[in-house]
Parts: sequence; C-alpha cells; structure tokens
Amino acid sequence: MRTIYESDSTPKADGYYMPAEFSKQKRVWMGWPHRTDTWAHGAKPAQAQYANVARAIAEFTPVYMCANQVDYANCKAVFEDDPGVHVIEMTTDDAWFRDTGATYVVDGKGGKRAVHWHFNGYGGFVDGLYFPWDKDEQIALKMAELSEVDRYRPDDMILEGGSITVDGEGTVVVTDQCLLSPGRTASAVRVEEDEDNIWPTFELAFKPWSDELREYMTEHLKAYLGVEKVIWVKEGIDPSETNGHIDDVATFIAPGVMACIWTDDPDYPFYRQCHEAYETLSNATDAKGRKLKVYKLPMPVEPVYMDQASCDSIDIDENAEPRVSDEPLIASYMNFLVTNGGIITPQYGDVNDALAIETLQKIYDETWGEGAYKVVGVQSEQVVFGGGNIHCITQQEPEA
Amino acid sequence: MRTIYESDSTPKADGYYMPAEFSKQKRVWMGWPHRTDTWAHGAKPAQAQYANVARAIAEFTPVYMCANQVDYANCKAVFEDDPGVHVIEMTTDDAWFRDTGATYVVDGKGGKRAVHWHFNGYGGFVDGLYFPWDKDEQIALKMAELSEVDRYRPDDMILEGGSITVDGEGTVVVTDQCLLSPGRTASAVRVEEDEDNIWPTFELAFKPWSDELREYMTEHLKAYLGVEKVIWVKEGIDPSETNGHIDDVATFIAPGVMACIWTDDPDYPFYRQCHEAYETLSNATDAKGRKLKVYKLPMPVEPVYMDQASCDSIDIDENAEPRVSDEPLIASYMNFLVTNGGIITPQYGDVNDALAIETLQKIYDETWGEGAYKVVGVQSEQVVFGGGNIHCITQQEPEA
Repeated sequence: MRTIYESDSTPKADGYYMPAEFSKQKRVWMGWPHRTDTWAHGAKPAQAQYANVARAIAEFTPVYMCANQVDYANCKAVFEDDPGVHVIEMTTDDAWFRDTGATYVVDGKGGKRAVHWHFNGYGGFVDGLYFPWDKDEQIALKMAELSEVDRYRPDDMILEGGSITVDGEGTVVVTDQCLLSPGRTASAVRVEEDEDNIWPTFELAFKPWSDELREYMTEHLKAYLGVEKVIWVKEGIDPSETNGHIDDVATFIAPGVMACIWTDDPDYPFYRQCHEAYETLSNATDAKGRKLKVYKLPMPVEPVYMDQASCDSIDIDENAEPRVSDEPLIASYMNFLVTNGGIITPQYGDVNDALAIETLQKIYDETWGEGAYKVVGVQSEQVVFGGGNIHCITQQEPEA
Repeated sequence: MRTIYESDSTPKADGYYMPAEFSKQKRVWMGWPHRTDTWAHGAKPAQAQYANVARAIAEFTPVYMCANQVDYANCKAVFEDDPGVHVIEMTTDDAWFRDTGATYVVDGKGGKRAVHWHFNGYGGFVDGLYFPWDKDEQIALKMAELSEVDRYRPDDMILEGGSITVDGEGTVVVTDQCLLSPGRTASAVRVEEDEDNIWPTFELAFKPWSDELREYMTEHLKAYLGVEKVIWVKEGIDPSETNGHIDDVATFIAPGVMACIWTDDPDYPFYRQCHEAYETLSNATDAKGRKLKVYKLPMPVEPVYMDQASCDSIDIDENAEPRVSDEPLIASYMNFLVTNGGIITPQYGDVNDALAIETLQKIYDETWGEGAYKVVGVQSEQVVFGGGNIHCITQQEPEA
C-alpha cells in the first residue's frame, strides 16, 4: 500500500481512469447513519431505510456496510440473515460514502487504485454542513487499505464523489455551482507563502466561479479521473447543502447516453435548473466527439417535506444546521445507484414513483437491451431527511 | 455471512477442521498495542517492536494490522512504506490476536469459516487480567466479516487461541492448567436454571481440573477444531497470566513432529514443567496413532525482567494488575509464528538467542528439507513486558 501524492504522479500519468458506474463492480460501500443531529429519531428510521437499500443492492453486488464501534453489534444483528452484506467497523462523522468514499480508478489491465480526495464537510468554514469532518476525511484511506490498493492523495483540491459523473470513455460531467464554489477548491488551495503552515490560510486562492478556477479544476479532473473532457452544467438543484451535486441532476446511462431530470411545471422549484441542464447536455459532445443523447427523467410531483415530529427529534448541536419542517427537501429520482445490472432507485410515496421506475426501465431497455438492467425501487424519504439519497449513500468499487 | 450457533452445528459436523500453522496462509492478523496500563512508555516501545514483527511477517505473508481509531493515522504512517502491511480500523481492548482472534477452519474443498470463541480477558472475574473485554470479544466477529466467511459461535465455552496447537491431521495439544482452570469454561457455562438471565450466574458449572470438565472440553475441542484426539499437557510456564498457554511450551513442526521447550538447569524457574511437558509429549501418540517425535528447544539463559523505568511509566488502573520490576517475565523461544515458509522467532538479547535460531533452523531443515523454512529473529522483549510474544500477537488466516 503506497500513497501516491500529486507531486509524484496522477492516475492519468499512470494510465488509470475512473470506470463508469455501469462497469462491473466488486462491491458497494456504505456507512451506517448515526448522527443524532442529522438524522431524526436517533437515526433509527434512517437506519431501517439504509438497511433496505443495502439489501436491494446485495441482490446484485456484495455490500460493505461500515459502522462505528458503538453501532457495530446492532448493525451486524440487522444484517444477520443477509449473507451479501458484510459489516465492517469504521469510524465516520456522517454516512455519505458517495462523497467521502474513495473514487476507484483502473488501468484496464487488472490494476486498481484509489483516489482519496480531500473532503471538508461540503464547504469547510465557508459553507460546510458539520464540524469536525476528520473521520470522514479518513474513510477513503481506510477503503484503500481494505481494498489493498495504492492510493492517490491529490493536494490542493477538494471534491465529493457526488459532484462528478463519468462515462468511462473520457468524459466527466460536473456543475459550476459546486466545483467552482467558494467553499471547495477555491478556498482550499494553500497559498504559496503559507505552504509550511499546517493550518493553511483559508484565503481564497481562486475567485469563485472564475475562469482561472475552471481551468484549474478542468486540469485536475483530467489528471485524477483520467478523462479528456469536462462538461460543465451551470447549476444543480441543491444549492444550500451539496452546492448542486450533479448526481441529483444527470447521469450517464451508457457512453454517449445520459438521463437528465425534467419537469414541465414552470412552478416547480427547480424548473429553470432542469431545463438549463437539459439544454447544456443536449448540446454537448463527449470526449469521443459524440453528441449526447439525453433522456428525460421526471421529478416527484410534490416536494418532500420533513414532518415536525422528525424535526423536533433531531439533536441540537451548535456546529450543525437545525432542521425545519417548512423547507422543501431535495428529492430526485436521478439519485439512483447502478450496480451490476441493478438500478436501485429512490421512492418517495409520490404519484410519480411508478412513472420514474417505468421511465428508467424503458431507458435502460432501449439502451442496453431488455433484461440487461432491472430497476428496483426502495422507499428512501428518511434518507432525504438527512440530505441525500441512494446514490449519495453508496460508493461502488469496480472490479480490476 | 451467517452465525452458526452450537445448537445448530459444529465445524466437525460440517466437515471443517483447523489447519496447522504450517499450512498455506492467506494473511496474518495483528492488533496495534495501545493500552497505557499494559504497555510501558505509552506503548511506543511495544509499537516499534510490533511493527518490526509485522514487517518480518510481510516478507512471507500479507499482514492486516488492526488499530483503534485514535491510533489509525499514526499506525498507517508507520507502515507507509510497507506494501505488505494493511492498516485496518478495529477497536480493541488489548493486542493479543492469537487469543482474541478468530480460529479459522477449512473443509479442504475450498470452504473456510471462522470460530468465534467466547473470550473473558484470561479468566474473567475469577483471575482475569483486565476489564472490560467487550471489544476484544468482538474481534473474531469483525475478522469473520472482513474475511467474508460464516462464523461458528460456540456457547458455553471459553478459549484463547494460544491455548491450543493442532497438527491439522486430527490432533490438538492443550494444557490442563489453562483449559481446566476455574476462570475459563469451568465458570462460564450458564447453569441451567439461569438460562434466560442475560447476566448468567458465575457459579462454577464444573469443578476445576475435574474429569467431568476434561471430558466436556475434550468433546468441545473435537467438535470445534475438527480433531479426533486431545493430548493434555499438565502445566505451562505462565501460571499467573495465561494460566499456562501451550504456545509457550510446545508446537507442531509437522504432523507427528513437535518441538518442546527444554532446559538442563534444575534451578531454572520452570525446569519441572519443561521436563514434564517433554515427557508427556514424547510418550503420546497422535490421532493417527503415530508416536510423536519431539525436538528440544532451549530457553533463554537469563529470565527477562522489566526495568524499573518501564514499570514506572505504566498507567495505574484499578482494573489492571500493576507491574513490578523484580518479577521474572515469561520469555520462551517457542512463541514463534510459522507463516508460509517463515519462522518469526523472538529474540531477547540473551546468550541463547543465536542458539534458538540455529536449533529451529535445524529442526525445520531436518523435518521439511533445507530451504523450506527460513528462521528469522525479531527482538521482542517489549512484547514480553506486556505479557506475551510473537505467537501471542499474531493470528494466521489460512487459504481456503
């Protein structure tokens, strides 16, 4: 196990790239939710839905469910009859392995490595969501050790896995809103005169949303994901928490084929963002010069709200944002996981639940042929209460 | 992953058995020492020697080094340049994976499972060494999950891996002193009228060292190790800490061949025990009816003592035994690890250090042919200060 720092090398320089989510996977990593200042009712309702997600995944791919020591015995008991879910001890701050987990890269010749991004709780001291985040920052290292793979540790860059989607053939799609925001790489790059200070100055090294930052991120994404082209979507639909992660907005179905959220209702809170993203993607060409085919995926008809009893049950912590019941939560059918022939899709009890599953099944059937993918719905509004969904709480590890 | 309770089945009933230490191994498990009430000078000298042991093993077999969260970053840094040592998060009470780790069993047809013994800190409330031991009690479960194997969880039996040695062909050697002692299975069996009490009565269910207990243990060892014959050595050389674990006294070199500690000095503290063990083994036949060939392995000439500064540096805890510098510690060359052609052997700075290595090399060369095994010495007096040695701090996981 070796750490490969930015100054030494990059995945691209070594012939590695991030495979698409529809590539063959070895396992899916998840973390067991536990924060009583994030999750309602002592995290018990969320744990029950995480467990259902894990069981749905395990029909297709083995799951490593990572639990803190204090939760270990109970978590193992939950999965006692699930041979496909392995319960692993791991200390975590929160339970979003898409964002805190390693991004695995492969070389197509049997080699696999991990990229261990810097993580700062979704914006650090600029607009982060919790403090401290040191345990979450170690998750990708621990995953690399358990996967027995070498690890890249990019300096001077902050990234969450939910803010990227790749086609495995040279293209990544991201949002300006997240990657160019002041709380990510813009403020995390160590200014030169400060490089020996272990507490680097949190001065902005880049002006947020500047061309200079876009260029910097483009180069780093190419180097660490092994891609040739970065497609920039302007905004996502979750401005305040993830700063607009792409995984609520669009994903690759296959090389050259994407799905993007869509609504025809101009009163829908993120009507403009849906249409702009769709436009951007429909007019984009990928790294191979292909014009993208973009499917439309409906949004839930009704926004999801947290009930007052759930809000009242959340522990109060001066470092965490309090929850209120009159704010619409971010619920998108796009936040599904693709895993070895399974499409594990959020369900909200919304009138569009069945339509989302039908639409996705049709998209996958048309793209890959009937029987290649099975779309499975899992009720997950408790995960929405915490701020994400099925894609946010999972991280695939590809086969080498 | 499934738990197979005693009431359901046993390894023997399922065709599984514990392979000998000289069988092919997949990895070796260790735990990173940390208790400041066990280990001198904040555990730092012990950590350095554990690291050297891990590195010596990694020349032959990959190592999983399990560290508590608070030690994780430092432990990983220690092994940054050791690709054969993987640092795994695991909460532990102390660092004796021989005794707390899973005993793996195989079926010879590609199947592997784990036996997760009950552990009570070397004697529980009768004569145990620390309290609580609940994290150590979970280690074998966590190993089984990480190995992705099913797990036997024998009820009504307490056992440490250091108290057994097997030939992989139907024979196990144990000591009366440990297995029949009042602090192990004798007092741990739940008395019948108390079976629904989650705090079982710590009444003696068996009279210590009784024929009835010997018979009970014999049957259970056969069932859980998949053996046919139990050879009982009366005493070990560590009466107060491990209650005489066999792994300080004797081990199998090959089927039909053992090594046993030996001294010609009648004033040596454990002269009688060495001679009695040698006699017992030399007169024993194994499960296949073979008379055992028993090699003699010398002891260190001088007993090992802890220095006063080390004693004074150990934290005081009302639940742990204080250390004193005038008590001779248990140091035996027998406490080596066999791992894929490597014999990782304790060294004490004693005049017999070189002789022990020479003797072992000769034994292995004669038994297996020259070049089959390489005997490697590692300085380990700091491990002795904590109460064990190289075999005590390692647990092999066989290849299926």
